[in-house]
Amino acid sequence: MKRNIRMVLEYDGTRYNGWQRLGSDSGQNTIQGKLEDILCRMTGEGIQVIGSGRTDAGVHAYEQVANFHTNTDLTCDEIKHYFMAYLPKDIAVRSVDEVPERFHSRLSASAKTYLYRIARPDCPDVFQRKYTWQYPELLYPDRMQEASCFLVGIHDFKGFSSVKKTKKSTIREIYSIDILPLEREIQIRVRGNGFLYNMVRILTGTLVEAGAGLRSVSSVCDAFTSLDRKDAGMTAPPQGLFLAKVEYPPEVL
Amino acid sequence: MKRNIRMVLEYDGTRYNGWQRLGSDSGQNTIQGKLEDILCRMTGEGIQVIGSGRTDAGVHAYEQVANFHTNTDLTCDEIKHYFMAYLPKDIAVRSVDEVPERFHSRLSASAKTYLYRIARPDCPDVFQRKYTWQYPELLYPDRMQEASCFLVGIHDFKGFSSVKKTKKSTIREIYSIDILPLEREIQIRVRGNGFLYNMVRILTGTLVEAGAGLRSVSSVCDAFTSLDRKDAGMTAPPQGLFLAKVEYPPEVL
Repeated sequence: MKRNIRMVLEYDGTRYNGWQRLGSDSGQNTIQGKLEDILCRMTGEGIQVIGSGRTDAGVHAYEQVANFHTNTDLTCDEIKHYFMAYLPKDIAVRSVDEVPERFHSRLSASAKTYLYRIARPDCPDVFQRKYTWQYPELLYPDRMQEASCFLVGIHDFKGFSSVKKTKKSTIREIYSIDILPLEREIQIRVRGNGFLYNMVRILTGTLVEAGAGLRSVSSVCDAFTSLDRKDAGMTAPPQGLFLAKVEYPPEVL
Repeated sequence: MKRNIRMVLEYDGTRYNGWQRLGSDSGQNTIQGKLEDILCRMTGEGIQVIGSGRTDAGVHAYEQVANFHTNTDLTCDEIKHYFMAYLPKDIAVRSVDEVPERFHSRLSASAKTYLYRIARPDCPDVFQRKYTWQYPELLYPDRMQEASCFLVGIHDFKGFSSVKKTKKSTIREIYSIDILPLEREIQIRVRGNGFLYNMVRILTGTLVEAGAGLRSVSSVCDAFTSLDRKDAGMTAPPQGLFLAKVEYPPEVL
């Protein structure tokens, strides 16, 4: 039976076309593609790497979890060191460990947390300019926190997604949204059981519109009843978004 | 009498040829040049901006202090906003205020602090890769702190400078060197009354050699007696170095 190997990854998504490799062509510059190319050299096997979620082009990860199946005899330490020797400097493997066969980085996940970072217009941090949204207007964090209460819970998030038609359920649960007003940026931390395509970026754009006074606090949930993308806010740009944490129930580990 | 205006600046030095403009040519891509070009547009005057120190190509600043003399009637707030509207995103003006005529950002400074950041080889932070030295060997911070004691004090730092011949004094006082072992990086914080060309980078390279066991702890001060550049360590690369603080005595402000 093949071994099931889990990795915790960190990456700067700036120069990548997102997580997901499309087909077998290796010229697409995706995070998944980089990892699979190195695994192929390392093991001689054609290995598919399963990520906990597909980050979009330009989106970063403080903590992405992935797993893959292999026959290799290499130890987890050896796998980590091989990766670190061949990965470009904007992708890092933080840890490698062996997990039970039933572990699946996407299907087993019980919660995911995304962090969205918005620079304060009066004192943007030059060293964070590629990792924040430089939104030009003053935002009121209290209004954003108030608005976020309308979004927490089990809802149909179809209006908060860029996918036009899907047969799959668009119902998700958001466990919490925290607005963190820091000295030089405002952070939005969203924890939920799953997220649709562009959902965190549209939630962010909607909260930012409320925080800037461009829409009323209670209007942020208009798209729950209409299910219409037009009733939600703008899509925030990718560079402020980070996959920050992926949680698993103890029984899969 | 002209007004004397002080600015506190922050910049990412990655794509600049250092602080200092050489001559009047504006095609050199220096921090000073960027500031002077914008001041010329703002005031119609040909203004020289005086920095507290000349950071090298690729060196950053969390806090650089500069001043200039002008006849403009613009308020300090207006000057700050004009700069923020026209400066590239890797340079920021943190504050602008008017100071007494006697204030000179370089000559009045009583102390300067530089910070040098070295990534830990076992878990480099991908988001800090352009702001740290990715030194490949394991460093022992205790050895570095012990070695730093030999460097603190009043010494002739000629051997710790890249300038070959100078008639000016090469005696400087280092008030303190702190080695800060953090989770993902080691920081060296050097506070002194002045620094020669490349001095902090050579001090860092020397401490790193001691920290990696490439030289004995006590050998770090060999260049004090020989005054020979060859007896000090390597020059650490520019991207890990930050001008972090400039101090002034209360009577000049």
